[in-house]
Amino acid sequence: MSEYIEHDQSGVSVGLVKKQRFTFAQPPDELALESGATLGPITIAYETCGELNPDKSNAILICHALTGDAHVAGYHDADDPKPGWWDIMVGPGKGIDTDRYFVICTNILGSCMGSTGPCAYNPKTTDPYSLDFPVVTIGDMVNAQKALIDHLDIPFLHAVIGGSIGGMQVLEWCVRFPEMVKSAIPLATTIRHSALAIAFNEVARQAIMADPNWNNGKYYNGPRPDLGLAVARMIGHITYLSDDAMRLKFGRRLQDKSDFSFNFDADFQVESYLRHQGKKFVERFDANSFLYITKAADYFDLGREYGEGSDVDAFSDTLAKFLVMSFTSDWLYPTYQSREIVKALKKNGLDVSFCEIKAQWGHDAFLLPSDRMTTLIKGFLAHATD
Amino acid sequence: MSEYIEHDQSGVSVGLVKKQRFTFAQPPDELALESGATLGPITIAYETCGELNPDKSNAILICHALTGDAHVAGYHDADDPKPGWWDIMVGPGKGIDTDRYFVICTNILGSCMGSTGPCAYNPKTTDPYSLDFPVVTIGDMVNAQKALIDHLDIPFLHAVIGGSIGGMQVLEWCVRFPEMVKSAIPLATTIRHSALAIAFNEVARQAIMADPNWNNGKYYNGPRPDLGLAVARMIGHITYLSDDAMRLKFGRRLQDKSDFSFNFDADFQVESYLRHQGKKFVERFDANSFLYITKAADYFDLGREYGEGSDVDAFSDTLAKFLVMSFTSDWLYPTYQSREIVKALKKNGLDVSFCEIKAQWGHDAFLLPSDRMTTLIKGFLAHATD
Repeated sequence: MSEYIEHDQSGVSVGLVKKQRFTFAQPPDELALESGATLGPITIAYETCGELNPDKSNAILICHALTGDAHVAGYHDADDPKPGWWDIMVGPGKGIDTDRYFVICTNILGSCMGSTGPCAYNPKTTDPYSLDFPVVTIGDMVNAQKALIDHLDIPFLHAVIGGSIGGMQVLEWCVRFPEMVKSAIPLATTIRHSALAIAFNEVARQAIMADPNWNNGKYYNGPRPDLGLAVARMIGHITYLSDDAMRLKFGRRLQDKSDFSFNFDADFQVESYLRHQGKKFVERFDANSFLYITKAADYFDLGREYGEGSDVDAFSDTLAKFLVMSFTSDWLYPTYQSREIVKALKKNGLDVSFCEIKAQWGHDAFLLPSDRMTTLIKGFLAHATD
Repeated sequence: MSEYIEHDQSGVSVGLVKKQRFTFAQPPDELALESGATLGPITIAYETCGELNPDKSNAILICHALTGDAHVAGYHDADDPKPGWWDIMVGPGKGIDTDRYFVICTNILGSCMGSTGPCAYNPKTTDPYSLDFPVVTIGDMVNAQKALIDHLDIPFLHAVIGGSIGGMQVLEWCVRFPEMVKSAIPLATTIRHSALAIAFNEVARQAIMADPNWNNGKYYNGPRPDLGLAVARMIGHITYLSDDAMRLKFGRRLQDKSDFSFNFDADFQVESYLRHQGKKFVERFDANSFLYITKAADYFDLGREYGEGSDVDAFSDTLAKFLVMSFTSDWLYPTYQSREIVKALKKNGLDVSFCEIKAQWGHDAFLLPSDRMTTLIKGFLAHATD
């Protein structure tokens, strides 16, 4: 048993934040995936903040986006260099108030931040899975989360919340386990991945696969496809910003000089920014996980999966109360895509609030401080089971 | 002397189209570049359609975009597999009527379609230039075109016309040689390259440079950086389309199958399209030229270059009559950027017509058939010197 599948129920508790792991789908009871393949054992890394109340009615599941992890808020210890990825929203007295709610965040299936993914050891070979890891879907990720919620003996979720690919998980929860979701906040997301979003993902994947170090996925014992993964990340960063955001953030400002280099150095700040983001990313993320998670996003299409092509039919069993939010400058999942979600929900007679937040920072806006977003989420959660 | 610098004034005439070459800047009289470097000899490949009239008043220069060439219209011979890149617009009776006008199109300096660029032989070493080729600017490209126009003994241009990077050349002509340009049609272009456009170019360049076959530009005697160049091209193709265009053209349609592959094959038509475009492109284009031309575009900023930061001042000597056109779904050079051009021109009291054409096909729209665009160009040219 490698560290990837060890079972640590005791957790590491530092202040509010508990780091934990849960392993399930032990052979022969493997998890049946949407592809028809099976997978097991599966470890899900998760963190919790706050306390589950005695009647177990205050649990909130937060779902992270493409490259996130279970570390949603707070610090692990005094040496933790930075807080969790949504610390501006999650914590005592914050928009998602950990004095009131028991917050759970899992690292998604297929990732590389503690949960089972292509870099985990394949128990059948004792090598990392690499491309022997089965292609997983957003539905498979949600099934793994459901196994954890059952394991924690939580009967229902006060809310499921997430942005981008996290928002896809939110919608999938509402369709797959309608009786378990009291309320849902899908942010900056879509009911189906658009051709444009698929195109960006595909080019990012091609950049990884073009790196000879990728070696058909088998690079764990040698040099890693860092250059390809860096290019993939740079493509991502363009999609997370917007024309406006880039003009405001960088414009045509030069990097450390007063004139052009007349060579292929990074002349402009935007070039340095992208190169820096690419370099930083390869230190923390696994190239194969990038392939798997982007593929899961590309496959995401609730209408196709659950409604025989009809978005309305897909939500026919859904019961949750909804707060849907989009951001004006998000061109990866533009507002019209959130409106498609809202329309399908409303046609099912569901209780839906929708807000398009004015934001300059493109798709990234859902991760950035916004008093409006915080107020809306806080208010919605307070009345989610009214 | 290699074929890259041979001088062929006789030309190959097939029907209307004449393929020709002009070599200038012979040592010691090299061309002074904006970087401070010098370059020579320089060959410019060009094609002409139509006939120069006796008073030499009907010449139109057409400027191509990033990966175009001098073959703007017509067929070279019966075996030519397809006509020139703007054949829908240029020819007898067409929007740019070669029965009336003498059309000239040059391959830009730095390209690889017959004009001198990084793949040309460096007379000082007899090897291809590779990265010893100096970084050139849009202004340098226009200077090379001016040398050709002088060589052809044409005193002025009835019009200079081009889209995208070709549009930058149009604007540069109007600023650099105001007395020579009677009218100008910049299409789907900008007065300065935006941070977003720089970002896309930079990621494309990084994709090329990440390919080990790129070998710091020295690949002409070995394997070429085809995988990196293909990724660069795929990024480009995303920017040439738009969210709308991709939805209409591809949506989520699957490629040759009824269900997902659950592997990393191209499941979606948009993926196949991008892969195909990448593969096709490497057969015809040089990776180093891609680096040089995108860098020239990134440096383009007329206000900085000629107006000490003021777009209005940059056009203070300009005399041409203008038809500026943008396309609604172009998100590489959106309409607001054409409006910036129009504003700066109008503040100089120039005669400017502006039209935003409703088009679904993104930046690519300027290359696609449009009755509106054709009618506007034809009418404008007929009255350009009124």
